[in-house]
Amino acid sequence: MSDSEFSDKKILHSWRKNAAPWIRAIDGTTIASRKLVTDAAIVAAVTALKPASVLDIGCGEGWLARKLTSHEIDVCGIDAVAELVAAARRQSGPREIYRQLSYAELSGGALPLRFDVLVCNFSLLGRESVNALFAATRGLLNPGGHLVVQTLHPLETCGEATYRDGWRAGSWAGFSEDFSDPAPWYFRTVGSWVTLLTENGMQLAALREPLHPETGRPASLILSGTVGG
Amino acid sequence: MSDSEFSDKKILHSWRKNAAPWIRAIDGTTIASRKLVTDAAIVAAVTALKPASVLDIGCGEGWLARKLTSHEIDVCGIDAVAELVAAARRQSGPREIYRQLSYAELSGGALPLRFDVLVCNFSLLGRESVNALFAATRGLLNPGGHLVVQTLHPLETCGEATYRDGWRAGSWAGFSEDFSDPAPWYFRTVGSWVTLLTENGMQLAALREPLHPETGRPASLILSGTVGG
Repeated sequence: MSDSEFSDKKILHSWRKNAAPWIRAIDGTTIASRKLVTDAAIVAAVTALKPASVLDIGCGEGWLARKLTSHEIDVCGIDAVAELVAAARRQSGPREIYRQLSYAELSGGALPLRFDVLVCNFSLLGRESVNALFAATRGLLNPGGHLVVQTLHPLETCGEATYRDGWRAGSWAGFSEDFSDPAPWYFRTVGSWVTLLTENGMQLAALREPLHPETGRPASLILSGTVGG
Repeated sequence: MSDSEFSDKKILHSWRKNAAPWIRAIDGTTIASRKLVTDAAIVAAVTALKPASVLDIGCGEGWLARKLTSHEIDVCGIDAVAELVAAARRQSGPREIYRQLSYAELSGGALPLRFDVLVCNFSLLGRESVNALFAATRGLLNPGGHLVVQTLHPLETCGEATYRDGWRAGSWAGFSEDFSDPAPWYFRTVGSWVTLLTENGMQLAALREPLHPETGRPASLILSGTVGG
């Protein structure tokens, strides 16, 4: 496939198309690995930093933002997909605000706020959009702030392909028949994720690999970068 | 197996026993992945830091130390196994010195010198001995210095076992019949290696995963930690 089919734009197209079944899937916590491991892992990684404010980048229907407000954290959620932002607002409490913003708009300075933590929970799927976002993190963080990213573990998801950065075809395998037109995603190695942090003026503060209790393998990779005090 | 069979002490016992075939194997560069990938990768990782002085920890028969001297670096090699140190000295040039020292002795302050880079090339196999060595690195490094570790890639070598730190049985599979009594080794996850750095006052400066050209999978993991300037 050509890069025109595998692009940051195509990712947004797919999420707009699948917003409704996604909201139902998350509401019903039908994704086993999230319920078993990765939901608790990202909440633990963020709350361990004791932030007063968090920006949830690619917040989707807002489950993580809502969860963090129960830890007395003020949360702003952004997502490019209008239907997801609308769903988040329907359940919103007094510590939450949501904005419909693309990563490009966020990277371009559309949100004139700073936070203690930026969190991206399985929401960094693109190439240029993600590179630009990492370049913009310093301007969105308070001194001593952290960027926390949870993503698919590169070595668990590499499959038969060469372990090298590049576009991969998406899949809704394991999801209901309501999903269609899966988003492509840009595969990055563990080393490339670390380099994204260090080349954008951050230090790797922690690297976690939460174990899936049934398989004994990492269910995800969680990177925490800091801009220093 | 009990921990008494899987121990730091057992590792040294095995290396003393296999020193002679090891020297022959390295001299003949019979280990395909070393020749194809990992030898060049560790030389590149060290020389990129432009050090004037390097301590080669677990130097074995000295190939890496010798190689680094050709880049006009002064190298000190240490190894606990007398036969390996003797082999290194036999080919030694004017920029190299070798000392027979265990990791426990090194960690205890037996070498009153400081270096720009400490390098450990597939030489960190134990538990307590490695933990103590990491704790001692700051005292062995010049300001701004680096610790560079090349090790088996945890996800490639995990096999069927749970992805969790612990002792594993050794193997000489793929080696000649001259080898016997393989050393046990203490498996560490990627996250645990990073934590070893950060908990001992170092920052992760780089994480490399050199690709094996034939398999398209990482041939090793190279971590570079720095104590800062």
